[in-house]
This record gives sequence, structure tokens and C-alpha cells, in this order.
Amino acid sequence: MHRRKFLGATAAAATGAGLAAPALAQDRITWDMVTSWPTGAPGLDDSARRIAQRITDLSGGRLVINVHGAGEIVPAFGVFDAVSQGVAQMYHSVPAYWISKNKAIGMFGSFPFGLTMFEHLGWMYWGGGQELYDKIYDGFGLKGYLAGGTGPQWFGWFRNEINTLDDLRGLRIRTTGFAGEMLNKVGVAVVTLPGGEVFQALQSGTIDAAEFVGPWNDFAFGFHQVAKNYYAPGVGEPSSTEEVVMNASAYNALPDDLKLIVKTVAMSAAVETTMDYEINNAKTVRLLTSEHGVTVRTVPQAIVDGLAAATGELVQELHADSDPVVREVIGSYAKYRNLMAEYAPYAFAGEMNARTQPFAEG
Amino acid sequence: MHRRKFLGATAAAATGAGLAAPALAQDRITWDMVTSWPTGAPGLDDSARRIAQRITDLSGGRLVINVHGAGEIVPAFGVFDAVSQGVAQMYHSVPAYWISKNKAIGMFGSFPFGLTMFEHLGWMYWGGGQELYDKIYDGFGLKGYLAGGTGPQWFGWFRNEINTLDDLRGLRIRTTGFAGEMLNKVGVAVVTLPGGEVFQALQSGTIDAAEFVGPWNDFAFGFHQVAKNYYAPGVGEPSSTEEVVMNASAYNALPDDLKLIVKTVAMSAAVETTMDYEINNAKTVRLLTSEHGVTVRTVPQAIVDGLAAATGELVQELHADSDPVVREVIGSYAKYRNLMAEYAPYAFAGEMNARTQPFAEG
Repeated sequence: MHRRKFLGATAAAATGAGLAAPALAQDRITWDMVTSWPTGAPGLDDSARRIAQRITDLSGGRLVINVHGAGEIVPAFGVFDAVSQGVAQMYHSVPAYWISKNKAIGMFGSFPFGLTMFEHLGWMYWGGGQELYDKIYDGFGLKGYLAGGTGPQWFGWFRNEINTLDDLRGLRIRTTGFAGEMLNKVGVAVVTLPGGEVFQALQSGTIDAAEFVGPWNDFAFGFHQVAKNYYAPGVGEPSSTEEVVMNASAYNALPDDLKLIVKTVAMSAAVETTMDYEINNAKTVRLLTSEHGVTVRTVPQAIVDGLAAATGELVQELHADSDPVVREVIGSYAKYRNLMAEYAPYAFAGEMNARTQPFAEG
Repeated sequence: MHRRKFLGATAAAATGAGLAAPALAQDRITWDMVTSWPTGAPGLDDSARRIAQRITDLSGGRLVINVHGAGEIVPAFGVFDAVSQGVAQMYHSVPAYWISKNKAIGMFGSFPFGLTMFEHLGWMYWGGGQELYDKIYDGFGLKGYLAGGTGPQWFGWFRNEINTLDDLRGLRIRTTGFAGEMLNKVGVAVVTLPGGEVFQALQSGTIDAAEFVGPWNDFAFGFHQVAKNYYAPGVGEPSSTEEVVMNASAYNALPDDLKLIVKTVAMSAAVETTMDYEINNAKTVRLLTSEHGVTVRTVPQAIVDGLAAATGELVQELHADSDPVVREVIGSYAKYRNLMAEYAPYAFAGEMNARTQPFAEG
């Protein structure tokens, strides 16, 4: 930044102070951020806009990010290609959408019985995750960072109660990504549908059950009007990270302090975004159960056990994948995941499980 | 920042381009950060220095933070007063140390059966916690942000096994803060000792048990050499946040973008610091059990229940405290804590508890 300021000052000195303002304008970089979210979508659009605004503010206006919701420049699922090709300089989306580009990318989003959001970010920061992610995205001309996300998702909305694996077999369930591969293995007919079509499919009986995100987002879609059994936890999607990804050439052209600003802003959004979801999810559960006749149910242990076994098969398949990058990512992920799973009962899970008594509120 | 750049450019224009460099030097602000950590202390000193360096880097060198470990300018417990009085401009420490200044401050650190680290930060960002914290610190001429921390602490090192509340009664246990108040209520003789004196006290039998931080830090102190039963989770201290606090006048004199840089860097450290601890704690547990003959034990349910009841009394006392700020903070904390405790089984705790099967690692 000193270099840029120095050049600005020199230009002003050479031509008179009256030109200082145009010299500053030349310092300004303006980027388009395309997102996978409709403008105004709770949580998702909010977090994209917070990140864009914070980059602009932290840079003192030197890097201005203009946000464009899904469909404004490119459709929701077009952001990866658009930024790869330089149509826009930045996108905000989720890695879970790009499994068709490379299966390994899905593991940076969410994996059944895998890392929670914050453990996942720990893998990125300290466990070699960022290096693997960089290696894959670099192949597409992209450079990105994870930035928090929707947190642990729910298992979904079921018209009827489920108690055993047999109750799942043959059901047509809307879900995505690796969660879908897990459910496939126990005989579920997995259906892929955009969020906007789920309500109609559930209402008409085209599908029997649906998993979308969690209480806050799901409530807005009205699923509770057509299915009253809401199951948690969503063992197929324990993290659901979001990502801020740049065109690699645009990123490389930034001065070092602006590069660091983008990275730091992504980090700063981690707890902010995820806890926005947790808090709104928690409040929405109270609303759904008290005013909308929804019954919140825990996924029965027999089903959890069956899905854990199915996930074990999925892990083995990834270790045997023909793509060496997939093998490298699952190798790193599995080792780190086991370390975290082993430790959680002594730490975060242990603390949470001990809180069985409410505090007096006044 | 534009204003400053403009002034810099004008000064250069008025006096010749050769003066641009001195004009820039005048833009530079240099602060001292004092910490409560010995230089080189794993995790603690690291996180203070990462934060200082990132502020310097993000500001393009306009705000330079020089770090001074405990004892270099002021002692570990002197940082609050030093920054309040302007001896230094910034400190890195933990709110748990300032209960003697105002009992309410302790609730921003850790509270028995309370919020985990990330939930706690959610309270700060979204639940009104920051406003309460600002109100209290403003009274001391301070402005601060929480910045991650050591995460869930452990229950401690015990020479003998503990199974019931009776086994705790009469024991002399080293701990701190509200965890100490909780243990007092079940008949523990709570001992307050600086970290450096704990080993000797435990070895000589002056104390029967000791809680310090968690595996990573505790291992460095060698407690495992004199007590072999290591209990978790530390239900008395589920969060243990760290804080970055500034002299309010120094903070108020910063331009807006530098103010935002300090805040954003504190946010960026949240997951980074906490997961550094989680990962190193998890690795250290493997080491302690495989190579140092330590037995890791879960705090028995009878003890958890007794301590939860004692904490219930503590919460009631805080609601009845003579200081209205204490009542305001526990009121906000308790409501939010109950919302989080209610929701965790469907989300983070539920996901973690479902991970009973290891993943194949290759």
C-alpha cells in the first residue's frame, strides 16, 4: 500500500494538488461478486453482502465489491464457471454444488458423520485442508476461502414417522451431495430438486420427504405446512460451509494487503455467519413447535447406525477412487476427522451434553 | 482513509514530492500490546502475536503493534490497569482475570454449564453481549473485542479417582473464577495459584487436585508426572475466551478503517485460535495416554448433577446481585444460554454424538 500511496502522492505533486482526487480514483478496483442466492434470501444473501461490504470498508474503498444475486448476471449454479472464466471476479456459494466438477470438492462442504463447521475450518487453517483446496481450485483458475456457513443441517421433513432403516427404504427423499450417496446405499430413492420446487413436490406427493437446510431457511419455504415430523440431526451434512472464491488472475493482481483483507474477512465471517444460523434456527424451532404443530424428533439410533455403516462404505470407495486428488483429500479428511471425533466428548460435545438443566432466567 | 491520503498528497504537493516519505511516516501509529502470557507460551502468546501481526499487515503498516509478554512492561495481571491508564494502548488477556474489577466481566470469559466458545461469540455478535461488554469496559476507559480462546477446559488432574460428590468434599483443588464458586458450594476448598506454582503444590501435596487449562498447556507444566487421573469435560469452564482490549482514547483516535481492522482481526482469530487448541489438545491426549500412563476419565454423572445444582444456586445469586450490571448480564446470558442448550442436541452436539464409528484412514 505504501507504494501505491507514494505513486499517488507523486502524481499529485507533479501535476498540482487539484489532481489528487483522480489519482485516488485510479487506485480503486471494482469487482463483481455473483452468488448462488436469490437477493434477499435470509442468511445466505446476508452473509454474501456482509462479506462484500466488509472487504470494501476494510480496504478504505480501494477494493469495491458489487453483489449480484442468482440470475442477475449468471444463474445460481453458473457462478463457478463465470468466475473461472473471468465473467465476474468473485463468487459466494457452497462447495457442495461442485461435486460434478470434482468429487473431492464436496468434501470441503459437508460429509456424512464428518466434521462440524468449526472443526472443518480448523482443518482448513491448521490441518492441510487449505492447501488441498487451493490445489484443486487452482486447476480451474480460482482462489478461494471458506467463510462459515449454515452449520449442521437437519435430517428433513417426513410425512410419516421413521423408526428403522426399513422405514427409509423406498422413500423418495429430496437431498444433495454425499448425503444423497449415503441414503442411496440404504435404499432411499434420492431426488435432486432446486429449493424452490421442493414444497410443491412434497405437497403433491411426488416426494415423500425432503431435506433442505434447517429450521430458519426451511420455515420460509413452508415445508411445515405439508409434513409435520421434523428430524434432526442431519447426520448427512454436519458442516455445510460457504465459500468466497476469486478469479485467480484477478486475485494475483491484488497488492498484498488487499489479498490479506479478503482472507481475513472470510475468516471473520466464520462464527458470525454460522451463529446467525444457530440462533435463528433455535428460535424457529420454538416457533414451529409452539405455533405450527410441528413435532421435532431425533433420528432413531437404529437409523443412525445404519447410515454410519453406509458412510463407512462411502469412505472406502473414496479411498479407492481412480482420481488421486480424491484419494488425497479423503486421506487427510479421515485422519483429521477421527482425531476430532475422538476428542469431542472431552470438549465441545461433553460440555453441551452436560447442560441438561435450564438456568433461571430472572 | 481517503481523508488521510488526501492530506498526505496535499502536503507532498505543497512542499515537493521529496517529502512524500516523511508525510507517510506521520501516518504511522505505533502501539504497545501488553499480554498476560510469558513470551513463548504455547497457544496464548502465539495468538496474541498473530493478532498483532495481522493488524499491522492489514493496515499496510499504518498501525504497528509491538507485543510485550508478561513482565516486560507490566506483570501478567497488570495489563488491564496499564491499558486503562494509557501505559500501553492494547492488551491481550482473558476476561476471567477481571472478576475483582467487576463480577459481570467474568461472564464474558466462561461460566459453569454455560456457553461454548462459538455460542459465546454468537452472543457477542448477535445476542447483545458486545453492548453489555462495551458498557462495562467503557467505565474503565477501555474498548475491546473477544477473539477466540482456549476452548472448553478440562476438569483437572486428580491423584485419586472421584465418583461421587462426597469424594470432592474437602479436597483442596486449584481452579479459578466462577468454576471456583461452583466447587465451593459442594464443599471443595478452592485454592488460587498462578500457573507456575501449581506443579510444586500438586507434587508436595499442598493441593489434592488441579485444573489449569487443557491437555496442550497442562502437559507443558508436567502435571501428569504427579497425578494420573485426568478428568473431562471441565463443566466449570466451557468457553474460556480471550480478549483484545484497547485504551478507549487511543481507539477513538483511530480512523474508521483502522477501527474496523482491529475488530475484524479479532473476529478472524475466533476459530483459528480455538481450533489450534482443539487440535493440539486432541493430539496431546493421545500422547498422554499412550506414553505417559495417564488415564483420561469422564466426570461421573453424579458429580455433574451435583455441580449443575450448585451452578443453579450461583445463577440465582447473580440474579439477586446488588450491582444492576451483574443482574443485566446474567439476565441476557441465561436467556441466550437456554436457547443454545435447547438447540444443541439437534445440531452441534447431535452431530458430534452420532460419530461413534471411526472412518477408515486409507
